[in-house]
Amino acid sequence: MTSSPKYTVTFVGAGRLATQLAIALQNAGHRIMGIYSRTRLSADRLLRQLEHKSPIVVTNRLTDLPWTDVYIIAVTDTALTEVIVQWPQQAKDRVVLHTAGSLAMDMLKPISGHYGVLYPMQTFSMGIPVDFKEVFVFTESNCPTVQKVVSDLALSISNHVCELSSAARKHLHIGAVMACNFSNHLYEMAFNYLSEYGIPPDCLLPLIDETVAKLHRMSPHEGQTGPACRGDRRVLEEHLQMLDGHTLLREFYKLFSDSIAKSFA
Amino acid sequence: MTSSPKYTVTFVGAGRLATQLAIALQNAGHRIMGIYSRTRLSADRLLRQLEHKSPIVVTNRLTDLPWTDVYIIAVTDTALTEVIVQWPQQAKDRVVLHTAGSLAMDMLKPISGHYGVLYPMQTFSMGIPVDFKEVFVFTESNCPTVQKVVSDLALSISNHVCELSSAARKHLHIGAVMACNFSNHLYEMAFNYLSEYGIPPDCLLPLIDETVAKLHRMSPHEGQTGPACRGDRRVLEEHLQMLDGHTLLREFYKLFSDSIAKSFA
Repeated sequence: MTSSPKYTVTFVGAGRLATQLAIALQNAGHRIMGIYSRTRLSADRLLRQLEHKSPIVVTNRLTDLPWTDVYIIAVTDTALTEVIVQWPQQAKDRVVLHTAGSLAMDMLKPISGHYGVLYPMQTFSMGIPVDFKEVFVFTESNCPTVQKVVSDLALSISNHVCELSSAARKHLHIGAVMACNFSNHLYEMAFNYLSEYGIPPDCLLPLIDETVAKLHRMSPHEGQTGPACRGDRRVLEEHLQMLDGHTLLREFYKLFSDSIAKSFA
Repeated sequence: MTSSPKYTVTFVGAGRLATQLAIALQNAGHRIMGIYSRTRLSADRLLRQLEHKSPIVVTNRLTDLPWTDVYIIAVTDTALTEVIVQWPQQAKDRVVLHTAGSLAMDMLKPISGHYGVLYPMQTFSMGIPVDFKEVFVFTESNCPTVQKVVSDLALSISNHVCELSSAARKHLHIGAVMACNFSNHLYEMAFNYLSEYGIPPDCLLPLIDETVAKLHRMSPHEGQTGPACRGDRRVLEEHLQMLDGHTLLREFYKLFSDSIAKSFA
């Protein structure tokens, strides 16, 4: 059994995703040699979480980027445009990857002939380590060289690696926003609503856990429960009445109930 | 240490909730002595899942109900009204409980002077056993006698038992519908959307799992991620454009994004 290739890596960006990804790649045996961040504070924070086996260049100037096998740009979408405009001469035409679900691979064309995407589809929070093994990592590349690098990197941290085109990745991102960001907002609204009536919101947790646990055993359609899917007009009308003082919640309630009813019609 | 009192119980209804609750109560040492269901099929199915230590009356006629300490009515809200109208003389004024999150306790007044509610807040699916220990069970009663019975029953199956008024329980039910039924519908829409573009929807599962895992460690507001909460107008507009052919999804996307943005304004 041959061990998979190890790469030297520079991170452009030091936010939540960059931090978790840098730690995971270091744990997989790759060498993080550079960290760029607009603010030294974030770069230093990331540096503190890495092991220093060899010197790591920490900088807030792109012109200080070290020479490495791969450059991973993990910054917000807006910052990515700025980074591309300011990309330094000495790092031109190196293997460059971005990590954004919603941006086309070709964004990177102006700065290199060898570019690709490594998109770990997960929700990252500061301070909470993520087990990358179970995270789906989607890859894309403009040439076989990059495809090998991005596959090697992805497979070294995750058991779920798939190649996906820029177009498909955008659809995936919409699905992820709906399933993850929007459901989380539902939790926030439900928690706030219960708190308003003096009911501890934590009592929803077992219910939420079970709703998601069911997803591993059946389709969401099969697992659907509640007044809207059983067509319980009395409950639906009572709930809408009770939400009279909560204009926005009422709007959500109506949109969901109508949509669920349609799905079970 | 004295063991908690055991009761003889008749179930009116044999659906998902009745089935799981009957099994849990039997495991806790109570004796299920009667099962009523409008359809013999459901009643028989429930019967097959219980141990027969002593005879169990299985019937589709309310007038056949046996004489037991407690009658638990676990039917749909509409069916509950019918059951109350047809409640037989011989079971009048016994301890009667219903299990509905959305119905006032006083619904049961016409059939007994001793009534209450045992509401296990969970989403139940046929064939998948639920661990009641972690389910929040909300109780209510019209007199101390019933309060003792309903508390004994609830505490024998769950570690999370709370007394809650009918009014508060209705708010709780709205919160549960939002956090559970509506989030599940988001999953359905996201899964369908990905399938449409040939992306296996299962790749969303790690993301959904982590979103919910975070809820145990931080508030949903703290855990919110995505384009809407970071005010990423470019992504939001692109997504809305991509959803142009999906009128309903687009409506959801807009409502959620606006509401999340408001919550982070």
